[in-house]
Amino acid sequence: MVLERVKQLAQQVSNTVAPPHPFDPLSSLEIETAVALLRSQYGKLYYNAVTLFEPPKAQMLKWLADPDHTPKPHRVADIVVITPEGKVFDGHVDLTERKVIKWEHTPGVQPLITMEDLQIVEHVVRKDPGVIEQCGLIGIPPEEMHKVYCDPWTIGYDERFGNSVRLQQALMYYRPHVDDSQYSYPLDFCPIYDANKQKIIHIDVPKVRRPLSKAPPNNYTVKSIEEIGGYRTDLKPINITQPEGVSFQVNGRIIEWQNWSIHVGFNYREGIVLNNITYFDKVENKVRPIFYRLSLAEMVVPYGNPEHPHQRKHAFDLGEYGGGYMTNSLSLGCDCKGSIHYMDAEFVNKAGAAQTIKNAICIHEEDNGILFKHTDFRDDSVIVTRARKLIISHIFTAANYEYCVYWIFHQDGTVQLEIKLTGILNTYAMNPGEDTKGWGTEVYPGVNAHNHQHLFCLRIDPNIDGPNNTVFQVDAAQGAGEPGSVENYYGNAFYAKRTKYTNPKEAMADYNGSSSRTWDMCNENKLNPYSKKPVSYKLVSREVPALLPKEGSLVWKRAGFSRHAVHVTKYADDQVHPAGRHVPQTSGEPSMGLPQWIAANPTAKIDNEDIVLWHTFGITHFPAPEDYPVMPAEPMTLLLRPRNFFVRNPALDVPPSYARTPSEVAAGKNGCACETDKASVRV
Amino acid sequence: MVLERVKQLAQQVSNTVAPPHPFDPLSSLEIETAVALLRSQYGKLYYNAVTLFEPPKAQMLKWLADPDHTPKPHRVADIVVITPEGKVFDGHVDLTERKVIKWEHTPGVQPLITMEDLQIVEHVVRKDPGVIEQCGLIGIPPEEMHKVYCDPWTIGYDERFGNSVRLQQALMYYRPHVDDSQYSYPLDFCPIYDANKQKIIHIDVPKVRRPLSKAPPNNYTVKSIEEIGGYRTDLKPINITQPEGVSFQVNGRIIEWQNWSIHVGFNYREGIVLNNITYFDKVENKVRPIFYRLSLAEMVVPYGNPEHPHQRKHAFDLGEYGGGYMTNSLSLGCDCKGSIHYMDAEFVNKAGAAQTIKNAICIHEEDNGILFKHTDFRDDSVIVTRARKLIISHIFTAANYEYCVYWIFHQDGTVQLEIKLTGILNTYAMNPGEDTKGWGTEVYPGVNAHNHQHLFCLRIDPNIDGPNNTVFQVDAAQGAGEPGSVENYYGNAFYAKRTKYTNPKEAMADYNGSSSRTWDMCNENKLNPYSKKPVSYKLVSREVPALLPKEGSLVWKRAGFSRHAVHVTKYADDQVHPAGRHVPQTSGEPSMGLPQWIAANPTAKIDNEDIVLWHTFGITHFPAPEDYPVMPAEPMTLLLRPRNFFVRNPALDVPPSYARTPSEVAAGKNGCACETDKASVRV
Repeated sequence: MVLERVKQLAQQVSNTVAPPHPFDPLSSLEIETAVALLRSQYGKLYYNAVTLFEPPKAQMLKWLADPDHTPKPHRVADIVVITPEGKVFDGHVDLTERKVIKWEHTPGVQPLITMEDLQIVEHVVRKDPGVIEQCGLIGIPPEEMHKVYCDPWTIGYDERFGNSVRLQQALMYYRPHVDDSQYSYPLDFCPIYDANKQKIIHIDVPKVRRPLSKAPPNNYTVKSIEEIGGYRTDLKPINITQPEGVSFQVNGRIIEWQNWSIHVGFNYREGIVLNNITYFDKVENKVRPIFYRLSLAEMVVPYGNPEHPHQRKHAFDLGEYGGGYMTNSLSLGCDCKGSIHYMDAEFVNKAGAAQTIKNAICIHEEDNGILFKHTDFRDDSVIVTRARKLIISHIFTAANYEYCVYWIFHQDGTVQLEIKLTGILNTYAMNPGEDTKGWGTEVYPGVNAHNHQHLFCLRIDPNIDGPNNTVFQVDAAQGAGEPGSVENYYGNAFYAKRTKYTNPKEAMADYNGSSSRTWDMCNENKLNPYSKKPVSYKLVSREVPALLPKEGSLVWKRAGFSRHAVHVTKYADDQVHPAGRHVPQTSGEPSMGLPQWIAANPTAKIDNEDIVLWHTFGITHFPAPEDYPVMPAEPMTLLLRPRNFFVRNPALDVPPSYARTPSEVAAGKNGCACETDKASVRV
Repeated sequence: MVLERVKQLAQQVSNTVAPPHPFDPLSSLEIETAVALLRSQYGKLYYNAVTLFEPPKAQMLKWLADPDHTPKPHRVADIVVITPEGKVFDGHVDLTERKVIKWEHTPGVQPLITMEDLQIVEHVVRKDPGVIEQCGLIGIPPEEMHKVYCDPWTIGYDERFGNSVRLQQALMYYRPHVDDSQYSYPLDFCPIYDANKQKIIHIDVPKVRRPLSKAPPNNYTVKSIEEIGGYRTDLKPINITQPEGVSFQVNGRIIEWQNWSIHVGFNYREGIVLNNITYFDKVENKVRPIFYRLSLAEMVVPYGNPEHPHQRKHAFDLGEYGGGYMTNSLSLGCDCKGSIHYMDAEFVNKAGAAQTIKNAICIHEEDNGILFKHTDFRDDSVIVTRARKLIISHIFTAANYEYCVYWIFHQDGTVQLEIKLTGILNTYAMNPGEDTKGWGTEVYPGVNAHNHQHLFCLRIDPNIDGPNNTVFQVDAAQGAGEPGSVENYYGNAFYAKRTKYTNPKEAMADYNGSSSRTWDMCNENKLNPYSKKPVSYKLVSREVPALLPKEGSLVWKRAGFSRHAVHVTKYADDQVHPAGRHVPQTSGEPSMGLPQWIAANPTAKIDNEDIVLWHTFGITHFPAPEDYPVMPAEPMTLLLRPRNFFVRNPALDVPPSYARTPSEVAAGKNGCACETDKASVRV
């Protein structure tokens, strides 16, 4: 019966009009095929993840180079399950061959916490006698337990409980009314939830108790705004339209726009994954590879209050919950404005059924101001050309916070990653007059918002005119010789100091703001014909705080990737997750992911090799009342810029808005208004 | 006769419908009134500047507080002239009283170089026998002198010539055809122009000669693009419209938008000047002052090639040319897109007549993506609110480069300054195979683009709930105690380390990227009722390279403001120009402007006083062929963010695009689509 179902599904897959691209995420059909196969072999399982196992890079590069004469990589599902007995299995199912090709019990790990895992905790908490007792102690009577809420977090790592039991910590809140924001009523104790027993096994209770706040609600609902004077009424609409359609083309999941070609993937963990990013270079008259793969591979949000149990607040939102699983279904004109192309996301649920998040990815283009301009001061001859950008975005909600992720492509060859942080501060209770000791800010009476960092790990798999690349650290540096010396008489000499990274150990690098430190990913085998410098892409990133938890601290041990701004490793197919494959409840002893890989071969050759650059960036957030009760979006950004990659500005052939030459000025001619904007008006 | 003209003009001024606001730039009538008065007293003068002398701050604050019962500050013109004999006079003309109130001969200085000063040099150069000879030596015959061009630059400071003679250096170029970009044909020698004699007085000739490049032209004209394959044809229009009008109001030069009020001034030197920036705080139900004045007060562009005479390339584009004088007349749909309000700029010319640059300032609003969003993971109740920004911008052309300056106001109380650099690299000749020695990049055959920095000085005159403010340096810092210690057992403690600046000497501060260093401008007399921290605005700036010319170098001496990321001084009416009032040909001995003011009173009290914060930021540019022949805009930005200034997110009352509460979700109700965007579409 079950095998019959596998065959049916496989038939449906092969019947789909367009066979999947090897980088495509698994479709619902493929997910259900994998599940049906596993079910036939292993019976009932709780599914944690069924996602694309990306083809080995060597195989994939061959296929990309010559798809007509290369066997197409098999479709393989990467599986994480928990058995009804609580055992974790990792597996691979070859969907092309319809067979399980790997099935391994993985002891001593906890796979990430899914949305379903999260949902259940609040219900258990409300009925737990210990929780009811603690609520009573701070002023919440038993009949109000339906007003008690919790944001279940992974426990991080708690040495009292280790990693053999699957745990969550419940950050507790209260809502006077179902529509009130609970973040203004944080409770002072923290229950620990055992997922296997579906029970509270411990409650952390602070020495100093903090009764439920008596402050009025602090809301952002329509009703609450109307009660405090209503909405502003002076905003007139801004309409953004593309009456002739959009300028990009969608072929399956490949987006083509302004010489760019990008495969847009998506998985439960990293969210958007961009593969095989290429640019058609008019001068070389060929498609040039730039990045094999770009993704946000991990992040950690350490909080800075050293008092127990706040040290446990250092969520790895990607590795412990999944940026894909938490992704929002986007709505037109709200999340994205203009002419929007959406893509859905498909995942497995706990029971093994496929689930769809509609409109998970938004793709659209925007005007981007001036692309380039020059006026000749002699005669006012001029060129002015406007810019466009293509934005591929998703938004995910990690309990209180929202992360809006924008992958932006520019006409000048730049790739930009912008992240906006919004949503709600994580809050903790405080008594009237209590000292925050500098570890947080009272953003509202009784509400202590703790200091924290948001540290993201961008995984860059460069393919700068081929996979063999080298990373150079570049620092602005003063020239030799003091003022008055022969070689630097006026003291003005400066240059770009380039430091080649030859192995992973010397490539562990910190940020230096005053030297404007950047990193070049180069192909040393190909020089720019003019500059004679290797073709390269430069990482320009300026929001690069140091990891504030100290060396040897819990976060330092668990989030090894965040110790440095940059790490470089030799490419390996199985090195995708810089804090490890299964992150919850890792002790950091040993550190998983990046530190492990580097320690295994610290002197591996990484120059002129297939390499990966891991970049940690982010912000340190000291909260203020302005961030509350809902936080205005805080942006951060970084650029990947072509340097010595093109022989000239690759956007020269974007039609100008206006161009007039000196001879046209002299002849009294008008010049060319090649791209007249007929919609703009004077007011 | 002349006095009669003064009276006539004065009559016209008083007849204008709206009397000028004290911060308004001088009108054409006012300029001509001042000139007529001076002409009547001093005869023929060459006018360098006739601009608003801003009212003394003490007087102005009184008037702003109670305009109905305070005498209106007089209109005063600030004058710089050069007499026909070459003497410089600084003066003030009281336009209200119609009299000259200050007239001083200022020896040993050179006022800035105007556009008229610049225009003449090329004509002189072409006829100079020495120049013709040098052209001949590198392959340009005398009959081609009309193809020889020059970008006249201030000389910076050349110790051989001092500052008693008014000089320019002519950076030389060649155009095969009048429409070719000359920057691909730099010439290797550099004539020195004497403005008083209107003659070339010296030519700097390098030891190694570099004949005229034989490379084909490298252009960005329409014709040249058509010759290399034509323009791309796949861009579809994006229309941005406001069918119901804009959301801002214009009263004279005061712009009111989304609780902001801003007076938009403009002068020949700084370009846009923003005065009396206030925000209507709904919670306090009053207008709260934030900044008394914001402007880009100075900049310097040091080049990094130590070979003579390239050390002279370190233009102070504001102090030596004037960001206002060089400003572009903007065109609709090209420079700005959407519904645009323009303001003109009025200046004096050399002869004393008023000149107008039409559409010098562009004011418009833009959609700005998500302002805030939160989804409750329990039930998908949600709020999503879109953001707007108001942009006040101008663009100026400094010979080869374009600077696009955007002052951006956000609904959440943030003020952002964004600068885009575009235009053309300054270039110098190089021989085939010549080594750039790392001081530049060959961006095209025969074209060496030297390393350089763009360092801007933002002058912030804070008025955070009143003029008495204090600056704190804020660094993210680790808490005391190693991992395992009682106070920091898990090693995760961190906090915002605040360092108060009590005098200008200790306020000379550098940037620290790894501690995410920011600076708070606080009013210590007013605490946020929730956080108990002083109300403040935070300077968040991440593009802060160190000055690369060494201590004691020519640039270090002349551009004292650029030695540190931050300086703080006690407010003084006459301290506006951080490199001095007259910048060209200053030797830097002593250093003018900021270093002088600080040295005069290094221990002046600057906490809880009327202060000015000077912030130097910018980029270090190592050119690449992608930047050529015209450079894609390179953006840099900084933020002034309210911190502990408001008691809550001040944009809460911006109507959401969509909002749905938990009780609406439970009842199956739709929620509120308060600001439905009817123009967006799916594609």
